Amino acid sequence: MRSAIDPARLIARLEEGFAAYSEGRAIVPPVGHLSFDDPPGDCHIKYGFIQNDEHFVVKVATGFYHNADLGLSSSNGLMIVLNRKTGYPEAVLLDEGWLTDVRTAATGAVAAKYLAPHRVTGIGIVGTGIQARLQLEWLRQVILCSNVNVWGRDAAKARRYRDDMGKKGFSVDVAPRIEDLCEACNLIVTATPSCLPLLHGGDIRSGTHITAVGADGGGKQELAPDIFGKADVCVVDSLAQCRQYGDASFALQAGMISAEDLIELGRVIRHPELGRKDDSQITVADLTGVAVQDIQIARLVTEKVLLPS
Amino acid sequence: MRSAIDPARLIARLEEGFAAYSEGRAIVPPVGHLSFDDPPGDCHIKYGFIQNDEHFVVKVATGFYHNADLGLSSSNGLMIVLNRKTGYPEAVLLDEGWLTDVRTAATGAVAAKYLAPHRVTGIGIVGTGIQARLQLEWLRQVILCSNVNVWGRDAAKARRYRDDMGKKGFSVDVAPRIEDLCEACNLIVTATPSCLPLLHGGDIRSGTHITAVGADGGGKQELAPDIFGKADVCVVDSLAQCRQYGDASFALQAGMISAEDLIELGRVIRHPELGRKDDSQITVADLTGVAVQDIQIARLVTEKVLLPS
Repeated sequence: MRSAIDPARLIARLEEGFAAYSEGRAIVPPVGHLSFDDPPGDCHIKYGFIQNDEHFVVKVATGFYHNADLGLSSSNGLMIVLNRKTGYPEAVLLDEGWLTDVRTAATGAVAAKYLAPHRVTGIGIVGTGIQARLQLEWLRQVILCSNVNVWGRDAAKARRYRDDMGKKGFSVDVAPRIEDLCEACNLIVTATPSCLPLLHGGDIRSGTHITAVGADGGGKQELAPDIFGKADVCVVDSLAQCRQYGDASFALQAGMISAEDLIELGRVIRHPELGRKDDSQITVADLTGVAVQDIQIARLVTEKVLLPS
Repeated sequence: MRSAIDPARLIARLEEGFAAYSEGRAIVPPVGHLSFDDPPGDCHIKYGFIQNDEHFVVKVATGFYHNADLGLSSSNGLMIVLNRKTGYPEAVLLDEGWLTDVRTAATGAVAAKYLAPHRVTGIGIVGTGIQARLQLEWLRQVILCSNVNVWGRDAAKARRYRDDMGKKGFSVDVAPRIEDLCEACNLIVTATPSCLPLLHGGDIRSGTHITAVGADGGGKQELAPDIFGKADVCVVDSLAQCRQYGDASFALQAGMISAEDLIELGRVIRHPELGRKDDSQITVADLTGVAVQDIQIARLVTEKVLLPS
């Protein structure tokens, strides 16, 4: 699968997918969900298809946050690609959640491509896990900046992030506080499982773009509602989902913004003039994860595997 | 997988599953659904778990009714068994829809076990396809009767059914009309993709039990509403589903019965006195298909494969 992911092609496919979704050409029913206690965990089922495509996709993704105690990854899952004319399964991609991680990170790059300021002087990464790592690596596809600040609740993990990403060519400093990171950076990505806001409007300087990818389900939150109140452009991957959960839902509930203030990423991709207007604006992208991302990455992999060139 | 299905064990597991479901011990979210045109088809996603089980199950099933034109089976699908403590997939059962066919047929046997008259004198099968064949084979587990009437829209297919099932030890007559089948039989199973009622209350003689398995989604119907009005006991696999679709939903809409007249199969399994009281009553079981069936058959297969004795 690794060899099937050409970064530029994946980014282009995700852009197509989001545009199709926002134009109503993607059939994406509500996410299926199972929730577990003892140990806590959840399972999301995302599925759907893009009109006139030859395939449809069902993705099963799990997150069990105590797996680390067993020396296991917290996320896992698989994707199934089925033929749209016969219903026959054509591929089961046993990716163990890797494709979900990659499509989420590549979507961060898509958001940055359309919303980041022209000149990014510092990249701030909030979080130190797999997704925090992948987000930074994928930003390389669209952003020329290697100055990075990282913040994590666990200082030892933040130092490990610094060392590991340093080896990949980034110049990483550990920020003592999130406020320091916000001061030093004008492109910030949050990738944590937090249930309390980590970033606040007062800390964000003008010209900053923020992408939040952690709040993919009920209860999770990374951005205080006042960030949306302060932002000039508020982008979400899915209006339908972001009304129900994700950071934007808290801002809506708090009355900081109304639903009309939110623009879907797919609309910005089709009409870039709806995005950032200049390098003084604040922009925010709340990404909760949409089945079109799974559809597009699964198809990219399957095409390569089924039709090797 | 065939070797993993011990009929008596599967029936016992299905009984446990339905009982758990009706007692609220099964977590079974609403069925996920995709619908396709040109060619017409659909995809159902059923998933869930039984409390205190070590696994949860996601089942993807497809039905594309023009596949026969391509020489392909109309149904296909697979089941995924995941570990309930870690979210890790433990097995992907590429059964091509076979396990769904089997669990549906075995559930017909469960319904007959609890609802058929004490002395079955004739078995009537409406339909001539795979499910119509499996239903008859599975009835053998619980009913001592080999006199069979079959009716199908296509007389040639009905004759083929007669010949094929004759070789399996049944004495099968092709009924010229459904009315003739109803006259000759006191245990009737309908297993068709019909969208119009095939059986009507006026044709059903006292003492008959009817199991309807075809109407598993919106628009499909095999039993006229007056059958429910005439029946002494009306059983459904899932009250929640049968309010929305399946034969009972048409009877509810027509005002022939109210929701309180419906009893879940799992309750009858736990309290058999809620079922048939004597051999003069008319009973009906409307089976739309519930994820607990998939959970139970997938676990049975997986136990056998992962823990071969």
